[in-house]
Amino acid sequence: MRQRLGCSGVTSKIDLEARGKALDIVKYSMRELLEQIERGEKPTLIMPKRTLSNTIYDLKHKMLLLGPELQKRSFTDVNEAKKFMQTLLMASIIYEALRNNEYPTIRDLYYRGKHSIVYRSIDGKRVSENTWDEQRESDSVIRDLEVLLSVLREDLLILSKEKGKVVGNLVIRSGDDTIDLSKMGHGAYSIEPTPDLIEFIDVDAEYILVVEKDAVFQQLHRYGFWRKYKAILVTSAGQPDRATRRFVRRLSDELKLPVYILADSDPYGFYIYSVFKAGSITLSYESERLATPSAKFIGVMMTDIFGDSVFKKIIKEREARKTLEEVATGIEDLKPKTPYLSESERSNFIIKAKTKDLERAVELIGYKVADVCMEDKDAKSKIKRKEGLTGYPWFATPHWVRELCIFFNTLSKLEIEAMASKGLKFLADKYIPEKISSGDWID
Amino acid sequence: MRQRLGCSGVTSKIDLEARGKALDIVKYSMRELLEQIERGEKPTLIMPKRTLSNTIYDLKHKMLLLGPELQKRSFTDVNEAKKFMQTLLMASIIYEALRNNEYPTIRDLYYRGKHSIVYRSIDGKRVSENTWDEQRESDSVIRDLEVLLSVLREDLLILSKEKGKVVGNLVIRSGDDTIDLSKMGHGAYSIEPTPDLIEFIDVDAEYILVVEKDAVFQQLHRYGFWRKYKAILVTSAGQPDRATRRFVRRLSDELKLPVYILADSDPYGFYIYSVFKAGSITLSYESERLATPSAKFIGVMMTDIFGDSVFKKIIKEREARKTLEEVATGIEDLKPKTPYLSESERSNFIIKAKTKDLERAVELIGYKVADVCMEDKDAKSKIKRKEGLTGYPWFATPHWVRELCIFFNTLSKLEIEAMASKGLKFLADKYIPEKISSGDWID
Repeated sequence: MRQRLGCSGVTSKIDLEARGKALDIVKYSMRELLEQIERGEKPTLIMPKRTLSNTIYDLKHKMLLLGPELQKRSFTDVNEAKKFMQTLLMASIIYEALRNNEYPTIRDLYYRGKHSIVYRSIDGKRVSENTWDEQRESDSVIRDLEVLLSVLREDLLILSKEKGKVVGNLVIRSGDDTIDLSKMGHGAYSIEPTPDLIEFIDVDAEYILVVEKDAVFQQLHRYGFWRKYKAILVTSAGQPDRATRRFVRRLSDELKLPVYILADSDPYGFYIYSVFKAGSITLSYESERLATPSAKFIGVMMTDIFGDSVFKKIIKEREARKTLEEVATGIEDLKPKTPYLSESERSNFIIKAKTKDLERAVELIGYKVADVCMEDKDAKSKIKRKEGLTGYPWFATPHWVRELCIFFNTLSKLEIEAMASKGLKFLADKYIPEKISSGDWID
Repeated sequence: MRQRLGCSGVTSKIDLEARGKALDIVKYSMRELLEQIERGEKPTLIMPKRTLSNTIYDLKHKMLLLGPELQKRSFTDVNEAKKFMQTLLMASIIYEALRNNEYPTIRDLYYRGKHSIVYRSIDGKRVSENTWDEQRESDSVIRDLEVLLSVLREDLLILSKEKGKVVGNLVIRSGDDTIDLSKMGHGAYSIEPTPDLIEFIDVDAEYILVVEKDAVFQQLHRYGFWRKYKAILVTSAGQPDRATRRFVRRLSDELKLPVYILADSDPYGFYIYSVFKAGSITLSYESERLATPSAKFIGVMMTDIFGDSVFKKIIKEREARKTLEEVATGIEDLKPKTPYLSESERSNFIIKAKTKDLERAVELIGYKVADVCMEDKDAKSKIKRKEGLTGYPWFATPHWVRELCIFFNTLSKLEIEAMASKGLKFLADKYIPEKISSGDWID
């Protein structure tokens, strides 16, 4: 199976370079182990600890990062030996894949490494043990390697399915091609799974609009929105994957353009914004390169639907106000808001929140806001209470307290499609531009 | 809200033409109603019946089609009045959207039409009735309009999310742009939701390879597969949506190229092939334009994993052979097959089938094959038996009987990724080209 680099297939020059770089990274990190053995030491891998307790929200950079704690994996420690072996097995599989001009997926890597090791135990018995059984196990080993090598898996040319799309006045270089993203017709450019290999050549845009829903992206694209408003239009097609997040982060960093997120008005939509902005708690080590801390949520906001009268009424009560101020100071200084929807539109468009929506909202902001703002005792009683849930730090702002308070109070959610059904013209020529120009977004 | 065509947004010329055509279609079909009224007749809509009993598998064209039965919706029939009103309401919403330069989705259309009609009943009571409550209802009305107008919803510029992607030596025209699909770098071209508006300009390819899984598409693309083998590479990213199916059908019809489907080796993968080839039972009226009857399943086949020895053993028994011959004659004349996987690869790669996989397989081929080929009595007893399930006609072939018999016997399935994990070179340079050149596919 072994072969020289680039002697088959017709891969791009960019990939050949990336492959060379990745081979070096894997090789040099493993050399350290050899040196330990030569020095007569026990072979040990040392890497940052990927645990919740070692996950820190960096207030200055506004992102989730791994803390300073380290963990070691020693070959000679019986509790660590299996993990040590798994890590080396995975490193060698990835190394071979790189050498063989391959582009494995994490599913491939699981299959490639999956086998049984048969050996005699100390008491002479024949023992059989699997390298790993579930993909969960091999995925975790891949994450270990990412933190050990300080790379993203994409840097090792590990591919994945990719949902993100983009159109706009942007010329990029990908592989051996130069691609004008304003010349995609009615279709769109499907982002590559390794967005770090993209080069931005030319841009003529004022902001980046990330739309959660592909169908809304299609509508805005077809309407000529990005051309009219000089936007780069991106869709994550639901929960954003890694490549879309990295792509948006690079657009933000390198083009110095503001990023606005347009999602459904429900805790799931808010969470999508949160993943773009700060990363996911469980994969905090990736945030440093995947998160876009400057991303702004432009809507759909609860206040776009209901205005702020509900919230004003709630904070008139001293006790309620005090509790909400504990979550975020400044709730009384928020700018007033009038809704974009009429009473009858509201009644046709809103959807009743389910218990799992409420629980997701509590995850975002903790119990205090729910306790103060929810009047429906029946709905309240259905929420499962978990120990120690205090919400994400980046939701502890006056704006989000207001949004989520209204959510808990009205038990309502709304899809972007409802805004589009008021007329695509309304969505494209009024709602989005007005919100952006008036600064009616949440940072 | 009313405005003249094309006076806002920056839509393409193609869309302007499509919009004009769609407006005419809706207008002229509704004119018939006016004429009925002028003639003093009761306003009545007549359209093909969209029921299972009126769904026919056309053996000659190898697709599911609607039969000759018609249904009528009369305004003055109390049982039909609501449906009649819903149909007219939907037609008017679509007409307005077309006039207003919009691109609604079926979700939009649901929202746009959703409201309560308040009226006084015959006995003077105030009654309130909703136009529709669930999207299921409004979707069904859209389908009625499709058969009434003999169009696909896409012809009315109704958009939807779209997962399909394509790369290859193909130049297309979409909107106002000419796009070279061989110049997409590491990314891909995301197919538009209205593929009938695409124009094929130039092609240099020998076949179309449709890959079920986006991650495998990414690997083959990156490897340069389509360049090396002159293929147009398409992915449906799972269950194919309407636009991807229509796009593949048009590639097949207009470029006169064979279409090969590469999917997982499980009843779900077989079903994906089936949707591409013959359409889905519930939406048979669309098949005439969405299905690709000449599509071939190249794998992964059960015989690619296990060879044919299992099957040969089963049909040695006279009774078993007789029953299987009843499903499809010719099972003894099938070409022998040797597997692509070794014994140890098999044991690492195969996944145990679940009851729902077995039930899905029964849907495809009926109970006879399951009854003859399954030896695991426990697994057999878990399958829920449904009346009248005899399988789809296009699976009643000797090849599919062999494939599904092996599936029922081994209770195993396999993902394409397992083939890729044998080496991308194996998948790209041996498995796919060899299967195509030797004709080892199922028609």
